[in-house]
Amino acid sequence: MPDLPTPPIPPERTLDGLIGLEVLELDDERATARLPITDRARQPFGLVHGGAYATVAESLASQATVRAVYEDGMIAVGLSNHTSFLRPASGTTVHAEARRRHRGRTTWVWEVDFTDADGELCALSRVTMAVRPRPGA
Amino acid sequence: MPDLPTPPIPPERTLDGLIGLEVLELDDERATARLPITDRARQPFGLVHGGAYATVAESLASQATVRAVYEDGMIAVGLSNHTSFLRPASGTTVHAEARRRHRGRTTWVWEVDFTDADGELCALSRVTMAVRPRPGA
Amino acid sequence: MPDLPTPPIPPERTLDGLIGLEVLELDDERATARLPITDRARQPFGLVHGGAYATVAESLASQATVRAVYEDGMIAVGLSNHTSFLRPASGTTVHAEARRRHRGRTTWVWEVDFTDADGELCALSRVTMAVRPRPGA
Amino acid sequence: MPDLPTPPIPPERTLDGLIGLEVLELDDERATARLPITDRARQPFGLVHGGAYATVAESLASQATVRAVYEDGMIAVGLSNHTSFLRPASGTTVHAEARRRHRGRTTWVWEVDFTDADGELCALSRVTMAVRPRPGA
Repeated sequence: MPDLPTPPIPPERTLDGLIGLEVLELDDERATARLPITDRARQPFGLVHGGAYATVAESLASQATVRAVYEDGMIAVGLSNHTSFLRPASGTTVHAEARRRHRGRTTWVWEVDFTDADGELCALSRVTMAVRPRPGA
Repeated sequence: MPDLPTPPIPPERTLDGLIGLEVLELDDERATARLPITDRARQPFGLVHGGAYATVAESLASQATVRAVYEDGMIAVGLSNHTSFLRPASGTTVHAEARRRHRGRTTWVWEVDFTDADGELCALSRVTMAVRPRPGA
Repeated sequence: MPDLPTPPIPPERTLDGLIGLEVLELDDERATARLPITDRARQPFGLVHGGAYATVAESLASQATVRAVYEDGMIAVGLSNHTSFLRPASGTTVHAEARRRHRGRTTWVWEVDFTDADGELCALSRVTMAVRPRPGA
Repeated sequence: MPDLPTPPIPPERTLDGLIGLEVLELDDERATARLPITDRARQPFGLVHGGAYATVAESLASQATVRAVYEDGMIAVGLSNHTSFLRPASGTTVHAEARRRHRGRTTWVWEVDFTDADGELCALSRVTMAVRPRPGA
């Protein structure tokens, strides 16, 4: 895949950086990440925040799609994110695995599984990305 | 509504605090909040992160439901969060308004509208909360 | 709005006709319909079938969007349908009201409320339509 | 699994029967079905109706969950159904495969893949079922 341009905001200052997201793999069919369970990814009662799962799913789907379509002069933006919360995560890390389920001309669809230290499924996401011509490309 | 117990994690250290969420109103039919658009709520290309919208929706629905059911010996946890992204937010603040659409014995459903400084609708969420007996209540 | 071409399949032979859907209003911001509660719209235990609600939402959003974009040489197809089931419908008719929440260049988003004879909210849908150039237009 | 009671409405008179749904397998982790592509499952422009996919997903998840929990004195009802439409189905039959992703005390979650005659993925569903004590059990 081509090198993407340096994004205007250093990732460590964005939401991804704040929650401590570590992207491990990014290709056009699969992407994985690790989220350390710290207070920054929690709600006040100690559970991983539902929004943290949604953030991870959104970032994986977006980054993997943008990388894959960029060289064709396209850009990708999120259309929707539907995350279901199944059980509290145990341990200190959540693992996320995104699989691309659809590669259309105008939309891509990803499903993301979140598992905890015991290998239990904690949450599920479906993220739909819109793929559009890149301004200036 | 009753005073809730002090949560074990100070909210300012959680995801809500990190993104700068300001909850304005919380009652059992409606809740509103303001999210300042800073890099902490963005993705690296400058848009408000899809996960930030999902986080705000999740927090409003959760906090409003927990407050409403706590005095009856119940607790609430998120079951699902489905956020659609409609247009980039302009200005420096996103406004969120959550309306309760269903109050069942075991589930509550909220819909959340996100508008920007121009009053344009930027995102929509539907959040389903599970309501269950509180351990020890 | 322009007259649409006669569809290739008479509507009464399609799923809409089978369940007895009666579309009442169709414009570009709002659409309404009535669904008589007969066995044809039920599951075997007597409740209105979840798929019947989804069908009504999909038809209203699709028909209203297609009508609105057709004269501009566009067509619309469903991208996703998320229906939540809130309570059993009482009475003999379900009323559906669809409101357009977003009119973008490539997607439209509708939310649909389903109420029963008592005026109680029974189900909610969010339908996202993709809008694309019509082949040959 | 136990024999379920005869449902009050003969399935062939319900929505499932009308669209011609053929359930092939139903167990507590997996369920499959076949949907013949006839006008009864289409919208007027000839595509498989989005509501037909949602109906199949809802029926598989419901029937499989009810069978699995009935002997424990429980019943299951649909909470939500989110179906994404990926591409038109080719051929004369749609195949549906539902996999259970979560078995909780109060909710079960299923994901359903729809493939056409060419083995292409046409649609995806996530169905959440509520599991509750059966009245009189």
